Amino acid sequence: MTKRIVILGGGFGGMYAARALHRRLGDAARIELINADNYFVFQPLLPEVGAGSITPGHAVSPLRFLLQGVYVRKAVIDSVDFERRVVTVFQGVQRLPTEVPYDHLVVALGQGVDLSRMPGLEEHALKMKTLEDARRLREHVIERLEHAQISQLPETKRSALTFTVVGGGFSGVETVGELKELIDRSLPFYPDIDPSEVRVFLIEYANRILGEMPERLGTYAAAALTRRGIEVKLGTGVASATGTQLVTSDGEVIDTRTIVATIGNAPLPVVRRMDLPFAHGRIAVERSLRVQGRDNIWALGDCAMIPLKEGAQERSDFAPPTAQFAVREAKLIARNIAAVIEGKPAKPFAYKSKGAMASLGARRGVADVMGVQLTGFVAWIVWRMYYLAFLPGMATRIKVLLNWVLDGLSPRSVVQLRAYVPPQLRHVYYRAGDRVYDAGSRSDGFYTVVSGAVEMTRPDPETGEMTTRVIGPGGHFGERLILGATRRKTTVRAVEDTKVLVMERDEFMKLAEGVAAFRDYFRPYMERHGVKWPPEQG
Amino acid sequence: MTKRIVILGGGFGGMYAARALHRRLGDAARIELINADNYFVFQPLLPEVGAGSITPGHAVSPLRFLLQGVYVRKAVIDSVDFERRVVTVFQGVQRLPTEVPYDHLVVALGQGVDLSRMPGLEEHALKMKTLEDARRLREHVIERLEHAQISQLPETKRSALTFTVVGGGFSGVETVGELKELIDRSLPFYPDIDPSEVRVFLIEYANRILGEMPERLGTYAAAALTRRGIEVKLGTGVASATGTQLVTSDGEVIDTRTIVATIGNAPLPVVRRMDLPFAHGRIAVERSLRVQGRDNIWALGDCAMIPLKEGAQERSDFAPPTAQFAVREAKLIARNIAAVIEGKPAKPFAYKSKGAMASLGARRGVADVMGVQLTGFVAWIVWRMYYLAFLPGMATRIKVLLNWVLDGLSPRSVVQLRAYVPPQLRHVYYRAGDRVYDAGSRSDGFYTVVSGAVEMTRPDPETGEMTTRVIGPGGHFGERLILGATRRKTTVRAVEDTKVLVMERDEFMKLAEGVAAFRDYFRPYMERHGVKWPPEQG
Repeated sequence: MTKRIVILGGGFGGMYAARALHRRLGDAARIELINADNYFVFQPLLPEVGAGSITPGHAVSPLRFLLQGVYVRKAVIDSVDFERRVVTVFQGVQRLPTEVPYDHLVVALGQGVDLSRMPGLEEHALKMKTLEDARRLREHVIERLEHAQISQLPETKRSALTFTVVGGGFSGVETVGELKELIDRSLPFYPDIDPSEVRVFLIEYANRILGEMPERLGTYAAAALTRRGIEVKLGTGVASATGTQLVTSDGEVIDTRTIVATIGNAPLPVVRRMDLPFAHGRIAVERSLRVQGRDNIWALGDCAMIPLKEGAQERSDFAPPTAQFAVREAKLIARNIAAVIEGKPAKPFAYKSKGAMASLGARRGVADVMGVQLTGFVAWIVWRMYYLAFLPGMATRIKVLLNWVLDGLSPRSVVQLRAYVPPQLRHVYYRAGDRVYDAGSRSDGFYTVVSGAVEMTRPDPETGEMTTRVIGPGGHFGERLILGATRRKTTVRAVEDTKVLVMERDEFMKLAEGVAAFRDYFRPYMERHGVKWPPEQG
Repeated sequence: MTKRIVILGGGFGGMYAARALHRRLGDAARIELINADNYFVFQPLLPEVGAGSITPGHAVSPLRFLLQGVYVRKAVIDSVDFERRVVTVFQGVQRLPTEVPYDHLVVALGQGVDLSRMPGLEEHALKMKTLEDARRLREHVIERLEHAQISQLPETKRSALTFTVVGGGFSGVETVGELKELIDRSLPFYPDIDPSEVRVFLIEYANRILGEMPERLGTYAAAALTRRGIEVKLGTGVASATGTQLVTSDGEVIDTRTIVATIGNAPLPVVRRMDLPFAHGRIAVERSLRVQGRDNIWALGDCAMIPLKEGAQERSDFAPPTAQFAVREAKLIARNIAAVIEGKPAKPFAYKSKGAMASLGARRGVADVMGVQLTGFVAWIVWRMYYLAFLPGMATRIKVLLNWVLDGLSPRSVVQLRAYVPPQLRHVYYRAGDRVYDAGSRSDGFYTVVSGAVEMTRPDPETGEMTTRVIGPGGHFGERLILGATRRKTTVRAVEDTKVLVMERDEFMKLAEGVAAFRDYFRPYMERHGVKWPPEQG
């Protein structure tokens, strides 16, 4: 009977494994790849998407196009039943689960991000993990420039023009370099912003950046970034974050409305839920890439802890989570699965890195190729050529090359395609003393205090004297919004570190219409204020 | 003193008016344009964006780039105080309003969409008005193909592969033509979809399509679309819509998960709020483009009702809402404002259309150029050349041309960049008899009944017999979600036409944590079920 090989995940590991399996086994096996998106993301180009030098659509390729002959299933993985050998998935809008049987299973789901150790970071930081993250970064930066251009408040302008990138690995370094280039090239269109008002920070916990590269290149990169006006803070971590500030582990408070977090790798919930052996947050595999103690379960790429030698102990004894290694692992996993099906022995993984490179933006880079260390423009050209050749599919290569050529010849477009729409029900963090809103501001939501406390100040309607009221957990404010008020009458400050739940008028109205407990609670309150209730929508 | 001229809106009317004013007045006036987005959308290309033959970023140009010398303010317009001559706007995340003073005000805000007359259409139809609409259409269509490829339910597959476009004007005809081309060119990547399973409808209330063009061309267009497998329904309106069905004015029920509405033009709320004279839902202006009875308020483009002759009465006596006319109006408005500032008389608007054209997709079109009627490939080439020349800015022209060439040479990319994320609190409509969910389905939300009624069926936990319960307005179901249940135990059907409010687990949890009334209501309910409360998040 035809063997069924199911691959979970369509990144470098999964996509190349599916390709290699198809090439090796042809129609002798049914190869199926399951991925939440129907495309393969060329991860190394995400910082360029974030900076707008590449159109988002051109940093990805359709999996169906790259994997002809492989059955591609766009679905969200729910769970794996190792006993029954089935993967349970949810497909599209369909709400009934679908079971996909397998003989061999390849787990290539990569890593997720967990920022929850630092209060406020999960809620207020942008990430650089997915295509959507990269796209959002670009839109976010342009929004800050638009805002700074017209803001009359020096404090607001300063925080709008301060950008912070957390993490000095490849992703953080390339992101900060590209980000600075995007800003520099956009400024000519914002006449009311002086270049000296822009501050860009790179924050790294270790004492150097690009820890995966030779020290000389890390030092060069830090100096090159500094020369371009980027402030590199080494030996510095993040303590907490709000919508307008980042607090470092030194207690320094940076007024910023842009925090990009490239740190916090953690296993994805779906991988964690699988009953597999783990080591240091990754799936523990043998050198053959087979999961420890399992016959027919394999893992590769960022989600796997792959020993490079017997008795591996040190971090350097395991394969690093890079595209270069994932592609090699993919080839071996295909070979070993084919061997096991034919009753032959699996081979151990062995590969020596050919080097590493990073772009620093503005046509500068660092590269370590087979031990030769390159810097500056030459390294940047090598970086671009390497990734162009590495891109899967000629059509994608041509598009990316055209993007680069056009970007070199024309001004960077400052089009902000889509403003980020915050969730309608959202948590917001404030530090003690932070302004929540001022009298006269637009009424933008109904607030409840989850933890902490705020102080409301307003003139007494009768005497005109200023009155003050403190609201703690469970209390709410901003209800006048529901009466159709468009401007605040009170000023609200956080008196402690505070977490609030904010909802907009539409959501309040939907809840008042649909949820009786909610409506009944607010009815007397509103009737006291002479308001017809339930209010009419519109 | 330098005159301040403020233009509201950055579409064809507003953008070209700002350009013409700057050219005419130079630094003699301060010209400011206020727009919610920082880009100009080339509206006629939206159907091509919707079909993926043009990248979204290439159908737009940055206003700051097109309007050098004009002050561009990205902001949302709140209101206009005609007495004090100020426009009040909200800028970016800033919550304090900003006042922008003017001597002359140009209103060029275009039209909005109002689908509220047809129940369910607002909630379940896609629109084709903005760049985001166009982008969403493409992602939505690919999602339907992905779903049809893997669905095992014939009913679901049929509705996923049925696409309806409502409205047979330029926008509807071009959209349906491009949509069909996108589907036809994508199908080779979906081996489990047979082309005969795809149905595409164009629904038009009048007895012909392209009412703005000579009858012969409308007839040709309908025949050309029919030949390509599009079912054109004339003399047909929409009665109502749900997430899976469209009901026509004839009572026919079409099972479809894609409804694109290109109908329902209506004034934007911000324009309606202005205290200006209106005629047929547009701002009533004199032939000089000055708003009736106002000295210094002007209007043009789709939001204005512009008479083409004295005593205009018939629809054809007024300027049609097309880009061609808006650009002409922009030139005259600039001339007239300059004249009025200099104390000279304004001229009346007079322009005769040079014709019209429409693309039908698949390299076919219709064109009426100075009375010469063209059809087929020739008309399509004329259409592309005309719009390429009409695009503002050489960089944009080159990008669109490259897009077209690459699209002609390579397969259409089926990448689905971003799945549409439904609002977390949303209304859903069901017709009597519709399935809400089945036992065994994924628990995807907590439901409350706003109007209508549903019937829940499940086996009695003790006897195993099937029990039925009807839930009316104010009732709720699906609470087991909160206990962490991932699968439904009950089957729910709508027994009347029903409107429900749905929220996801995350939102339920946020409300339970933040809103005491909500938490207290559900506490006894949960305690009866032996659930620790409040639940821990995670």
